[in-house]
Amino acid sequence: MNSNLQDYSHKRLNILTGEWVLVSPHRAKRPWQGQNEAVNNEQRPSYDPECYLCPGNTRINGEVNPEYTDVYIFTNDFAALQSDSPDFSVNDGLLVAESEKGICKVICFSPDHSKSLPDMEPEEIQKVVFAWQKEYKELGENDLINYVQIFENKGAVMGCSNPHPHGQIWSQSTLPNEVAKKDTQQLNYFKEKNRSILGDYLAQELDKKERIIYENDAFVVLVPFWAVWPFEAMIAPKKHQTNILEMSDDEALLYAEAISVLTKAYDKIFNTSFPYSSGIHQAPTNGKDNSHWHWHMSFYPPLLRSATVKKFMVGYEMFGTPQRDISAEKAAKVIRDLV
Amino acid sequence: MNSNLQDYSHKRLNILTGEWVLVSPHRAKRPWQGQNEAVNNEQRPSYDPECYLCPGNTRINGEVNPEYTDVYIFTNDFAALQSDSPDFSVNDGLLVAESEKGICKVICFSPDHSKSLPDMEPEEIQKVVFAWQKEYKELGENDLINYVQIFENKGAVMGCSNPHPHGQIWSQSTLPNEVAKKDTQQLNYFKEKNRSILGDYLAQELDKKERIIYENDAFVVLVPFWAVWPFEAMIAPKKHQTNILEMSDDEALLYAEAISVLTKAYDKIFNTSFPYSSGIHQAPTNGKDNSHWHWHMSFYPPLLRSATVKKFMVGYEMFGTPQRDISAEKAAKVIRDLV
Ligand SMILES: O=P(O)(O)O[C@H]1O[C@H](CO)[C@@H](O)[C@H](O)[C@H]1O
Ligand SMILES: O=P(O)(O)O[C@H]1O[C@H](CO)[C@@H](O)[C@H](O)[C@H]1O
Repeated sequence: MNSNLQDYSHKRLNILTGEWVLVSPHRAKRPWQGQNEAVNNEQRPSYDPECYLCPGNTRINGEVNPEYTDVYIFTNDFAALQSDSPDFSVNDGLLVAESEKGICKVICFSPDHSKSLPDMEPEEIQKVVFAWQKEYKELGENDLINYVQIFENKGAVMGCSNPHPHGQIWSQSTLPNEVAKKDTQQLNYFKEKNRSILGDYLAQELDKKERIIYENDAFVVLVPFWAVWPFEAMIAPKKHQTNILEMSDDEALLYAEAISVLTKAYDKIFNTSFPYSSGIHQAPTNGKDNSHWHWHMSFYPPLLRSATVKKFMVGYEMFGTPQRDISAEKAAKVIRDLV
Repeated sequence: MNSNLQDYSHKRLNILTGEWVLVSPHRAKRPWQGQNEAVNNEQRPSYDPECYLCPGNTRINGEVNPEYTDVYIFTNDFAALQSDSPDFSVNDGLLVAESEKGICKVICFSPDHSKSLPDMEPEEIQKVVFAWQKEYKELGENDLINYVQIFENKGAVMGCSNPHPHGQIWSQSTLPNEVAKKDTQQLNYFKEKNRSILGDYLAQELDKKERIIYENDAFVVLVPFWAVWPFEAMIAPKKHQTNILEMSDDEALLYAEAISVLTKAYDKIFNTSFPYSSGIHQAPTNGKDNSHWHWHMSFYPPLLRSATVKKFMVGYEMFGTPQRDISAEKAAKVIRDLV
């Protein structure tokens, strides 16, 4: 590895989006006098009578949650996307808008209010994976839906308003911005080489080992060369799979193991329940040939120096380019050493 | 205006970047049980002996600030970009990186520690504008620099580590991501119509008045049709100007007035010193014909419902598309009514 990458400001290309990240490895020593995040390391009860996600409790719209025992899924009571809205579009000079329909769901990972993914057994996480597969399939079969975004916001600092272990699924008619970028980049490469760009990239990383955190028979966990967030990581299948339905039940357990290993290591970095947003990018459900897609799950955790000091993606990052201080290689080593 | 835009989920096109924003106007009623931000409404002293930006104080590297009386500029002590680093590039299969050089500066808006832009007189803000012009010119003339990003992070929630009124300037060799997108979109339109896309857009908005917050002889302040942040706003010159050097001294005062009016109104929305990141996008200093550029300043403020509840750009926004609840038209009315 070119040692300049550890010493001098440079930019790295995200091959999946075609965009850059600015890396300032020399800047990690900067002192911090700014805002600190609150940490909440208190142990939660297994059941909270006030939690609208716990089994048997009543939600804000009056519905009562069943006494569920593993995963529980329902339609979001305050969905950002509606399925029964009219079709319309605005094409008035430079004012351009289009109606966007969709279905938003909430998925409780466990009935146990006190847990989060790193506290769950791989077999329990495997049930979450099965639920993601079921939703991707069912929503994808709906004529209204051409893309299914599975994600989790974990921790108050990531805008999560309820600590009960849960994620969300927002599915919609058109491709979101980030997905459209990845669709284009993957397609261009596939057309030229008839191979998946992410597959070729993973082969390179498995050879170099510098940014690998963990691997098992079916999955690799690594810090991408172009990672933006301080401890950003990616989980991807070694085999070329366009979406999560191509994963066998055995592979689903290996995937669950990869999630477990990564999130457990995360919690050890600053001895705190590590906040992040995670999401799965995979083939659209638009009925087209999506052979160019190689599905992957990314974790974007904001903490930088301690349980209370996060990286702010503000001024320069909003107007210019995302910027990071610690190099991807150093971050990978920190996480790998905690596996 | 199509009333569906106030009632149903839809997406709007940002004509400057080519990207979309998802709007969910029906969702503004969602209850909030998540993280609240700390508010600090205490009056600061005019001079703080602990502040490394106050006149006469010593900075972390031992340098002593002069007894400055209006604007003071120095090179960032922890610059993210270096000017004296080696040239290098990595082109190893799918690992692509390039050295990036630059110069980062800090600009103190006032010697008075207690102030922020809305507390300053337009004549004082005009001096800040003159300083921006001087820096844009000088940095732009440096062979190393092809783009000059002027910005401000205001408030602890925006990662600002010192409340002394100040902004930053990061200048560099290549175009940052956001600037590259706007360069392409503006160029495509200009090639076709020989007019600036932003100029045509402003004419449309001045005609409709629905999203206008304020205007004077030289500037318009509005909420763009495609605004992402709850109370996002833009200040732009009515005349086609590619960069801030094309502004006369009289126009600089009118620009200062526009900044003053907008930031004063912001502080009234939730009766708090309103946090935001602001930035100026303008023509690159790459020596090319940049006639397609129309410079503008954007404000991205995070607060959504109160002085303590912000909009989180997390899971769906990071993996999909930025999403907003309150419509641009409603936000414009809220701000306009406070001018
Ligand atoms: O340079 P500052 O004010 O210390 O740092 C702040 O602004 C920078 C530029 O937007 C960001 O990279 C940092 O994350 C933020 O904390
Ligand atoms: O749906 P929630 O968890 O209430 O809301 C959270 O996630 C959403 C999807 O990323 C964001 O739009 C919200 O800003 C955030 O607070």
